[in-house]
Amino acid sequence: MPFGYNGKILRIDLSRKDIDVEMPSELFYRTYMGGGCLSLYYLLRELKPGTDPLGPENLLVFASSVLSGIPMSGMSRYTVAARSPLTGGFGESEAGGYWGPELKHAGFDAIIIKGKSERPVYVWIHDEEVEIRDAAHLWGLDIGTAQQRIQKELNDKLIRVALIGQGGENLVRYACIINNLAHANGRTGVGAVMGSKNLKAIAVRGTKKPELAAPGGLREISQSLVEAIKKHPNTQMIHKLGNTTFMTRANTIGFLATRNFTRSQFEGIEKISGETMEETISIGQGTCYACTVRCKRKVRTKGRYEVSSLYGGPEYEDLASLGSCCGIDDLEAIAKGHELCNQYTLDCISTGMSIAFAMECFEKGLLTLKDTEGLQLRFGNAEAMVKMIERIAFRRGLGDVLAEGVKRAAQKIGGEAQKYALHVKGQELPAHDPRAKFGVGFGYAVSPTGADHLEASHDQLFGQVGHGTEAVAPLGVLEPVPPLESGPQKIRLFRHAQLIWNLWNSLGICTLVAQPPSALTLDEMVKTVRCVTGWNTSLYELMQLSDRSMAMARVFNLREEFGRADDTWPERLFEPLPDGPHKGQTYTREDLERAKDIYYEMMGWDLEQGRPTRGKLIELSLEWLVE
Amino acid sequence: MPFGYNGKILRIDLSRKDIDVEMPSELFYRTYMGGGCLSLYYLLRELKPGTDPLGPENLLVFASSVLSGIPMSGMSRYTVAARSPLTGGFGESEAGGYWGPELKHAGFDAIIIKGKSERPVYVWIHDEEVEIRDAAHLWGLDIGTAQQRIQKELNDKLIRVALIGQGGENLVRYACIINNLAHANGRTGVGAVMGSKNLKAIAVRGTKKPELAAPGGLREISQSLVEAIKKHPNTQMIHKLGNTTFMTRANTIGFLATRNFTRSQFEGIEKISGETMEETISIGQGTCYACTVRCKRKVRTKGRYEVSSLYGGPEYEDLASLGSCCGIDDLEAIAKGHELCNQYTLDCISTGMSIAFAMECFEKGLLTLKDTEGLQLRFGNAEAMVKMIERIAFRRGLGDVLAEGVKRAAQKIGGEAQKYALHVKGQELPAHDPRAKFGVGFGYAVSPTGADHLEASHDQLFGQVGHGTEAVAPLGVLEPVPPLESGPQKIRLFRHAQLIWNLWNSLGICTLVAQPPSALTLDEMVKTVRCVTGWNTSLYELMQLSDRSMAMARVFNLREEFGRADDTWPERLFEPLPDGPHKGQTYTREDLERAKDIYYEMMGWDLEQGRPTRGKLIELSLEWLVE
Repeated sequence: MPFGYNGKILRIDLSRKDIDVEMPSELFYRTYMGGGCLSLYYLLRELKPGTDPLGPENLLVFASSVLSGIPMSGMSRYTVAARSPLTGGFGESEAGGYWGPELKHAGFDAIIIKGKSERPVYVWIHDEEVEIRDAAHLWGLDIGTAQQRIQKELNDKLIRVALIGQGGENLVRYACIINNLAHANGRTGVGAVMGSKNLKAIAVRGTKKPELAAPGGLREISQSLVEAIKKHPNTQMIHKLGNTTFMTRANTIGFLATRNFTRSQFEGIEKISGETMEETISIGQGTCYACTVRCKRKVRTKGRYEVSSLYGGPEYEDLASLGSCCGIDDLEAIAKGHELCNQYTLDCISTGMSIAFAMECFEKGLLTLKDTEGLQLRFGNAEAMVKMIERIAFRRGLGDVLAEGVKRAAQKIGGEAQKYALHVKGQELPAHDPRAKFGVGFGYAVSPTGADHLEASHDQLFGQVGHGTEAVAPLGVLEPVPPLESGPQKIRLFRHAQLIWNLWNSLGICTLVAQPPSALTLDEMVKTVRCVTGWNTSLYELMQLSDRSMAMARVFNLREEFGRADDTWPERLFEPLPDGPHKGQTYTREDLERAKDIYYEMMGWDLEQGRPTRGKLIELSLEWLVE
Repeated sequence: MPFGYNGKILRIDLSRKDIDVEMPSELFYRTYMGGGCLSLYYLLRELKPGTDPLGPENLLVFASSVLSGIPMSGMSRYTVAARSPLTGGFGESEAGGYWGPELKHAGFDAIIIKGKSERPVYVWIHDEEVEIRDAAHLWGLDIGTAQQRIQKELNDKLIRVALIGQGGENLVRYACIINNLAHANGRTGVGAVMGSKNLKAIAVRGTKKPELAAPGGLREISQSLVEAIKKHPNTQMIHKLGNTTFMTRANTIGFLATRNFTRSQFEGIEKISGETMEETISIGQGTCYACTVRCKRKVRTKGRYEVSSLYGGPEYEDLASLGSCCGIDDLEAIAKGHELCNQYTLDCISTGMSIAFAMECFEKGLLTLKDTEGLQLRFGNAEAMVKMIERIAFRRGLGDVLAEGVKRAAQKIGGEAQKYALHVKGQELPAHDPRAKFGVGFGYAVSPTGADHLEASHDQLFGQVGHGTEAVAPLGVLEPVPPLESGPQKIRLFRHAQLIWNLWNSLGICTLVAQPPSALTLDEMVKTVRCVTGWNTSLYELMQLSDRSMAMARVFNLREEFGRADDTWPERLFEPLPDGPHKGQTYTREDLERAKDIYYEMMGWDLEQGRPTRGKLIELSLEWLVE
């Protein structure tokens, strides 16, 4: 390894107020690289099984990657990981924005936080200097106010802040962490872990640009990427509408999560589509560090609801979870809900799905007006949705129950409620109905983080929307597979898609830029790693990295007693699809089990519980995980 | 797949005298590419388990690859495959030379031969024209004479001929096929299969150069390869001494097969070393199509033995098997033995090892002067060795017994003889003693073709002779592993080496040019495939191809009732190494079984018999092999 990648890992013990810096070997970086994979290394090494996710012993890992901080579109993402308070398993969520690159520019690849501060604090990192500062004055504030105060007291508006609002402070099990007010590490409740540590924020400022092994080569790829982004239909579409473009498509194909998955098309779609948003409340696009795609939404309203553009705007998952899934066609209310979720740092998906769950419980008589303190918590009631967000964030009344997530809430409510709790491993379903999209659904089932739309969405990836498979041919994927297919070929396709998605996760690459067929080719991705690190790497080595990361996540969950039975769907998803061109379509439990058999064997896992075999762990240089 | 790779497969039924041409799809070529992988496709599809290897139903496949015929060093190799008459399992052997590229220039990627001609015939292929011609006048001739007659009667000295001598005609179970008199498909007895079909030769002449997707790109790689070959110490060394350079090294390290593996260093090494050969009987270098390495030996002697340079000269395996393994230090006799083996098309390794076996039996009193018809068949008796080759080729006396290979011969001789029969799965051991080189030895044990030195020799590959691991870093191999190591890291290394060796096998790439660290980098290998085929491929896809080929070979052998117990070593190899710096070193049966456990799991095979799992087959697009 001639170039010599140098990185630093910051370690903070909040109980002892200890700050430490580690410099792992280049071999370590090449083996784990960043994101999910690097996080899992620390979680597996340092976390005892059964650790209380909201106790001081849980680790909270912020991990960028070897690529982070380079001036190139789509390379800004970083991971936050911990044992999840929502699922009890591997907790992990990625965000874009500016914070990850800023951390890298400040000199660190990752931060490992353990312990719990007695009083609220925040961490201030500036060019390798690290301080733990008092945050008593920030506690209880929404993130907009808190961020402003931090920037003011540190006297630098360019400081990037990742922080939690009241949702995180109040340990809502699906609280998120947000940077720059609009970029969320949304899922698995990492914000609650941050709250449990009395850690309000991590503010970062860095001026050190990353050393590059081949700056000229990187400039070339970066420039050609800018050109490709301008021209490629996918990035153009994403620029224009962000991923809200999926709303209309999801509805047309009939996989739009609607009324807590009792429907798969929404009659109010036109009022809440990406196109409508663009024409009405949208005021332009936001973006992430160095990215010319500019896919982020920005909205503003001054009608019944006043919504500031500071918090960006709803994306696909937000429109669907706070909108169609709650039967709500009021775009301003959804925008308000989105703003509140961001202010309080609640994951929009889990929040919307929890409210939709409560709505169904209310309609089915399992919750009464007494439970809701007079709120007509019916599908379509936009005001009720907005109010419930407040109550969840502050754990008031029914909000306190829903703040636990649908799995625990259903146990509390009892009776039939469990049927309406749509989750996998305790995490609420995202807004793609798997019955018309087996690959995404299978991803929900086997994802180590529970139902997760960033596990392996391969409609675009594998050319099912009119594209050929040329872009993914380097993976050996030479033939397209229809979306409804659930047989052997689909599982093979899924495995490759999952490998690629997990690779992006560990490299901090944005799916919207890299998802084939798109602007960044697989070849350019490999070259980017080469130019940055100087490593003579290949797609083969990178795919191994991803496989490694998946094996590590599986081992983590097995230690927390997840097994084969947890790789499943909620009951409702085995019922026929209610609407759309694929109406009636469904998969049986046997279909799913058959798919799992094949998948486990492909992964090198045993059939009983999906345990990675000893040989598989050794293949992936994980002999230290062989008990 | 925009370029559109076009290829043709020639099918010949010798029973019916049918000639047919198939044009498989581009998807087929991209999935199987050539060599071992492509051959296995036909063997698995068309051969019933239990087919008599020497009966008309056996297939004989000659397979070049998508790369064959391009004007570039190290790309000339092709495979001959069949059910092996020596092992009863997958029979396969590669050769360089000129015949493979010539076949490609004549319009074909492969030839599938089935049936049996009533009378001796040969096949004449010229620019897509195919004829089956009478060979009555050629039957019984050595290959030098036969080739000359064929070229004369077809009136073209540039015709390339792959053919058998008397060894193949007489169904010696380890008879080989040789092209241009010096390039042997040496192992597993494919020459006997050819003989059993009454097929003397395949003569080929082609003038059509392969179409290239990116001729400019290929020219660039090819030119830079020529430069690299001139400079690289490995290719320089190989040019100077061929692989006879290993003789001295093998002896120094103490893994030189000596006296039927009762010793691992040879006191006569200096008389039969590569250096000595170079200084004495060598008259220059031969080469293969378009290859600037020029690694092939050419010798001539006119002393006690007259040896013509027509048949090339001994390489490492020949010097060791006919030399040290028989305790013989007479270089001229070895050269004569090598010439005879080529004339009669006997595999030098199996021939030498069979004679060494008989020598030990003789010395231990299991064979008597009566058995040997007065021959003092003792270690060191060069004349006896030369005579035995004649007897084996013509199946005379003890030669008839040894023509069956050591496994069957030992059964016939009885008693202790079995202990001296050094084979795996019925194929005689090559001349690297595994006790000082675990990876090579493990390759002997698990190779589908039985003991095979072209399965995964990774001393050079993984930088154990003073090189770093940089050249193999794209495989994720980042740390060297000592040669004696047999633990998890070694098995991981072995898996990668085996994948690479099997990949070369399916692409027809010469290990001596490609073996890292060497002139051709892994990156250039991928680019070569791209430039020739136009496919947007990657090292990942190519490694999958290799994995596919290995799974197919395993399935083939399982159908022929090979299982876990057959992946082993002969008893002697579990005894302490007799000589050299590693004297006393050995591996236990438990070491081997432990290594197999890890390896099987890495391969995606079950532990019981090493059956590829259903998921593994599906991962490799082999769902058609799932029963």
